[in-house]
Amino acid sequence: MTVRVGVIGGGQLARMMIAPAVELGLDLRVLAEADGMSARLAATAVGDYRDLETVRAFAQDVDVITFDHEHVPQEVLRALVDDGVKVHPGPDALQFAQDKLVMRARLAELRIPQPDWAAVHDAAELQAFLDDHGGRAVVKTPRGGYDGKGVRVVASGTDVDDWFSGLDEGGALLVEELVPFVRELAQQVARRPSGQIVAYPVVETVQRDGVCAEVIAPAPDATDRLVRVAAEIGHRIAEGLGVTGMLAVELFETDDERILVNELAMRPHNSGHWSQDGAVTGQFEQHLRAVADLPLGVTERRAAWSVMVNILGGPAEGALEDRFPAAMAQHPEAKIHTYGKAPRPGRKVGHVNVSGEDLDDVVYTARAAAAFFA
Amino acid sequence: MTVRVGVIGGGQLARMMIAPAVELGLDLRVLAEADGMSARLAATAVGDYRDLETVRAFAQDVDVITFDHEHVPQEVLRALVDDGVKVHPGPDALQFAQDKLVMRARLAELRIPQPDWAAVHDAAELQAFLDDHGGRAVVKTPRGGYDGKGVRVVASGTDVDDWFSGLDEGGALLVEELVPFVRELAQQVARRPSGQIVAYPVVETVQRDGVCAEVIAPAPDATDRLVRVAAEIGHRIAEGLGVTGMLAVELFETDDERILVNELAMRPHNSGHWSQDGAVTGQFEQHLRAVADLPLGVTERRAAWSVMVNILGGPAEGALEDRFPAAMAQHPEAKIHTYGKAPRPGRKVGHVNVSGEDLDDVVYTARAAAAFFA
Repeated sequence: MTVRVGVIGGGQLARMMIAPAVELGLDLRVLAEADGMSARLAATAVGDYRDLETVRAFAQDVDVITFDHEHVPQEVLRALVDDGVKVHPGPDALQFAQDKLVMRARLAELRIPQPDWAAVHDAAELQAFLDDHGGRAVVKTPRGGYDGKGVRVVASGTDVDDWFSGLDEGGALLVEELVPFVRELAQQVARRPSGQIVAYPVVETVQRDGVCAEVIAPAPDATDRLVRVAAEIGHRIAEGLGVTGMLAVELFETDDERILVNELAMRPHNSGHWSQDGAVTGQFEQHLRAVADLPLGVTERRAAWSVMVNILGGPAEGALEDRFPAAMAQHPEAKIHTYGKAPRPGRKVGHVNVSGEDLDDVVYTARAAAAFFA
Repeated sequence: MTVRVGVIGGGQLARMMIAPAVELGLDLRVLAEADGMSARLAATAVGDYRDLETVRAFAQDVDVITFDHEHVPQEVLRALVDDGVKVHPGPDALQFAQDKLVMRARLAELRIPQPDWAAVHDAAELQAFLDDHGGRAVVKTPRGGYDGKGVRVVASGTDVDDWFSGLDEGGALLVEELVPFVRELAQQVARRPSGQIVAYPVVETVQRDGVCAEVIAPAPDATDRLVRVAAEIGHRIAEGLGVTGMLAVELFETDDERILVNELAMRPHNSGHWSQDGAVTGQFEQHLRAVADLPLGVTERRAAWSVMVNILGGPAEGALEDRFPAAMAQHPEAKIHTYGKAPRPGRKVGHVNVSGEDLDDVVYTARAAAAFFA
């Protein structure tokens, strides 16, 4: 029978599941935060994902629950599991994506390479970490940060006193060494509940102001060792944390050839948008296959190179769509993906994928096509 | 602003427009014949496409009207145009897809190569054609035939007396020579209202019992001349008939290297389903771009070969989706497309696309994956 996949959250990740769901005949149902969100075409309910009864009512009519984001509270997730609902990824896995301190501790147990880190409860503890790590470090709020929010580079133990004063009794912040990285990478894998895992090629991600700006797939000049180590890290985290669905592991590559885990995301991820057009099985299809416990698709590339450039903010005047004629006329090979969101400075409102055999050409075209939407 | 594209007809062709419409941010609205049809996710109205007031009400809330099929009556189409509605393809073009006698006469005017043909009003006229063409011929009802319906091979002037007796006063049937073809081909082009045209590579189509069974893209062993002539025929028909949107020209290739036009379709077509996964711009995206008068996308192949195999009928028991686990496990490179229709003998319920560098491998895999759904 037709599998009903319920997605909590109505953002662009849920939206981009619609296309593969239609083709695979999966019945996609979205619990959106509000009317008119990105995934509105598949929205069958609107409500607060933090409210157990809202989520429970939504879950009643689906075969499996998955997510557009990682913000559904553990209490809600665990109540669903207790109700007998299939939840992928499940709460035991999601806790590691929801709390960066819990994630760091677990990766340490698994002996996955990561930056030096500590849980710090006050300015004195932070200063001690700074003294041990060259006087500068990165402080993160363990929960709720994304796209550069909840992240601050500090040089003094008192630089995040505002965050310390907001902590609950016994609460802590995460401090990490400032990694001397030469570039950022991302490794995606998909894992089914039954255990099958497939890995995508490791990609290079370029961040600007803490937000993903572009992605090159595969990562240029990647040595065999790099490709192997990145894929192994993806496999070990997916298995060690019990992830189901897509997992994205953001990585630092250092000047001394270390690969260190930066962040995790347990859902389709911006670093994998290239795969919609550049891989035989795109990440949104793969996520649906994984959470429905269907055999996974091959992750082979369709072209030597694919480049994704985010459309951030969108036009200062008018709609994104007003720029289609000029962009499409100049770049008929560009694949434009829009999120159905109103333009707003810094907001992710779409992206452009371009694939081809020559990396310089592909980078140029993807940037030039995306520039029409600025 | 967001372009609202209204599609008349809720079948699988409308369904397969949903994925590119979502990614391009086009607001797709479907007038379906009934509830629960293939394109139900995008259905905003249900009603009879032959009823002017139904179609007129639907057209009020869209920017352009296009089609899942060619059956909307001329009176309805012309009334929409008179109302100022953009209709693509328009009635002047669609008449040639709606009436095969009108089509043959127009192609003759344009000097497009086609089989010998005649309009026959009775058994005597048919017998005269047979006497001139070796005693066998193909008779077609000018209107309403598809997938082998309304087509009969005859050897005597009296073989279609049932059809003659059903004709209106002055009505005629179309008779065509039995072309000694070595294979069937299809040429697709897309044309915008503003005149831009792009051509897809000519493909080989394999029919069984009058229904398309599989398609190989590009047509194997196609000479430069064949590729050029097929594309020229596509261009000339699109321009000569004023087609907007996708045009499919079904062709015979004869043993003496002639290319003759068999049938036309003015919409996305079964012979172009391979392009969803095998071309940079799939035919459903291209159709939307064309009817919205947006610049057309490149038609380059993503792989050396793509093969599409139709899923006809579907499983004798259970749903198509029940076969996913076995098919996907054996063929993780296959792209499965389902139409959300109940299995029924002979019915087109889905298709499988496979792309790759070795034709034998691609054909084998596509057939093997599709066989899981038989």
